[in-house]
Amino acid sequence: MLGNFIYYNPTKLYFGKEVHKNLLDALNGFGKKVLLVYGGGSIKKNGIYDTVISALNEAGKEVTELSGVMPNPSLEKLNEGIKVARESGADLILAVGGGSTIDYSKGVAASAYYDGNAWERFWLGGKEPDADQKIIPVGSVLTLAGTGSEMNGGSVITDESNKLKVGKVFDDRLMPKFAILNPEYTYSLPKNQMVAGIFDIMSHLMEQYFSDDDDSTTDYLIEGLMRSVVASSRVAVKDPENYEARSNIMWSATWALNTLLKMGKSGDWMVHMIAHAIGAYTHATHGMALAAISPAYYRLVKGFGLHRFARFAKVVWEVPTEGKTEEQLADAGIDKLADWIKEIGASSNISSLGVTTEMFDGIVGATFLGGGYKQITKEDVKQVLNDSL
Amino acid sequence: MLGNFIYYNPTKLYFGKEVHKNLLDALNGFGKKVLLVYGGGSIKKNGIYDTVISALNEAGKEVTELSGVMPNPSLEKLNEGIKVARESGADLILAVGGGSTIDYSKGVAASAYYDGNAWERFWLGGKEPDADQKIIPVGSVLTLAGTGSEMNGGSVITDESNKLKVGKVFDDRLMPKFAILNPEYTYSLPKNQMVAGIFDIMSHLMEQYFSDDDDSTTDYLIEGLMRSVVASSRVAVKDPENYEARSNIMWSATWALNTLLKMGKSGDWMVHMIAHAIGAYTHATHGMALAAISPAYYRLVKGFGLHRFARFAKVVWEVPTEGKTEEQLADAGIDKLADWIKEIGASSNISSLGVTTEMFDGIVGATFLGGGYKQITKEDVKQVLNDSL
Repeated sequence: MLGNFIYYNPTKLYFGKEVHKNLLDALNGFGKKVLLVYGGGSIKKNGIYDTVISALNEAGKEVTELSGVMPNPSLEKLNEGIKVARESGADLILAVGGGSTIDYSKGVAASAYYDGNAWERFWLGGKEPDADQKIIPVGSVLTLAGTGSEMNGGSVITDESNKLKVGKVFDDRLMPKFAILNPEYTYSLPKNQMVAGIFDIMSHLMEQYFSDDDDSTTDYLIEGLMRSVVASSRVAVKDPENYEARSNIMWSATWALNTLLKMGKSGDWMVHMIAHAIGAYTHATHGMALAAISPAYYRLVKGFGLHRFARFAKVVWEVPTEGKTEEQLADAGIDKLADWIKEIGASSNISSLGVTTEMFDGIVGATFLGGGYKQITKEDVKQVLNDSL
Repeated sequence: MLGNFIYYNPTKLYFGKEVHKNLLDALNGFGKKVLLVYGGGSIKKNGIYDTVISALNEAGKEVTELSGVMPNPSLEKLNEGIKVARESGADLILAVGGGSTIDYSKGVAASAYYDGNAWERFWLGGKEPDADQKIIPVGSVLTLAGTGSEMNGGSVITDESNKLKVGKVFDDRLMPKFAILNPEYTYSLPKNQMVAGIFDIMSHLMEQYFSDDDDSTTDYLIEGLMRSVVASSRVAVKDPENYEARSNIMWSATWALNTLLKMGKSGDWMVHMIAHAIGAYTHATHGMALAAISPAYYRLVKGFGLHRFARFAKVVWEVPTEGKTEEQLADAGIDKLADWIKEIGASSNISSLGVTTEMFDGIVGATFLGGGYKQITKEDVKQVLNDSL
């Protein structure tokens, strides 16, 4: 049953090929000074940088650049960004990249005018910026589909020295004011990054699906999105420049984690918690870490939500139900998930991501414990790691 | 394939039982003068009026009342509202009711400060208010699930003397600023109104599903919503006070027509066009008119989108596919739809709604022609009416 909730999501989404025109429209209404944030410079090779700069120039903006945002944005980099944003007097932070760049930009936007230790207050302390604190508006040009960061308040930052990767979800003031979504911008990604993004989407859906015991509209929406992601992934791995498949993947990513599906529901999120801890120890690609542990995690908890796992098999994977017990159906669904992970080329084990048994205690210790159908213990985390080796 | 589009939907939704508290929060940030719009007074019997007035008083608002909004809001009533809104100097129009009351309030909000014939400019002419024209913000307390008016810019008004029922979709300035959604508020509805609302939702989904030939994420989302509506309807007709079923119906209604599903797609909408014409001649309940003609309409067009109709049968109605041709599957899906219409007690024919063969020419003439898989002719409309008698 859907609990009480408030849904408000004012991010304006520009979807399709007309990036220059859309960006000009989106930049309207913000001040002159733009802090342009991006990663390692791939946007300079594929022409996206030129398109963005040309629109910024045409709109008469003064641009300060802040590049080098890494896949798991570090606390050190966050502190650099806070300084740059404040010195530049940015009226808008324009994040050009994937989830890491947008997550990072939101972190900078929230922290630039906070007079204190932002990491401790927002990420470790879980607090929101005060009502009267200045927040820099964020906009984005998305180049990688997966995290949903383009339409939510999420911001994952890693404290490398303490091996802590912490996800903070800010309130709607930190949701991007706009996001430019051009599926073609994702064509130039290496295949393994595309696949990692696809699994990230699937994981967001599963984290929200495998919890509660009800029959809410949200569950049906999630099933629809999962079916779409599976269908499009099968086209995209064979034909990465298939516009329909890549546009479906991009659109699914946004709706999988833009706050709609969590309304009135509880969620699980333990696969993400364990994968974050793995990420802090190995720099494994986030989506690949999720894939490597998902089958083992769901085999561990399936007995506590058998009906839902059976439904997953039937609706998402179209497993024939005749003559099967609920448990057999549930098993078949997780097997189908594991098969699909292999089929699209996602990671099937954590050894391939550099995890060794020596790291287990550290990873277990860095995992925030919680759960959906089952409250997860340290022993459970260890078992998932063992079963995923 | 999803075409280029811009998605922006800033309506804040308060979902659940805490109406008084939610309304107090929602009223924040609007001026003192509130124009309270409602229908025939049922809200005074079921206590909703008292809750709303108590929140308005607590928020210190000056209230002007405008009641008597009818199921198909008339042009005459619109003109009365324009006058009242202007004279009262309303800072906010608060619509308490179902789609008709909210549609009407948007019409008043758009027209109050337009110096000219609003009906001709906005509804017949299809134009938007000028950028510098004053528009009164609209908020709503929803008491009937179905139209989706609580989160879109739609406003259907009927010119009774000329028998013209015209739907206008305004831009995002006319989308309600907030909507209070309490599933319990729909309990006191007569069963036939609940059923009409349910079919209205299903029709919004079908109008957007039966068009285009692609495999977009939107199609999967629509399938999820259709499955949810069918499942919840079966619970709600037997147990109208089942909170889970009524909350699913309410939430599905909002998402079925809040602009998400139309992004980058073409749509059909001929069932609505014919039903609007029927409504102008008979005052038939909108949802019932949709139900009465849907099977005949879809039998007429199914050959032009056979693959999609077969998918509808398989995914939404779980018709076994084995040994069936695509055409047999398509037929089976429409049969299932017709069975469901009977099962939930929606109208299976237009005779029961007061339509006679003498009205056919008038209804055909009042129907705006268009279509999805097939461009519909006057003869087609006549055939649908004949097949639906």
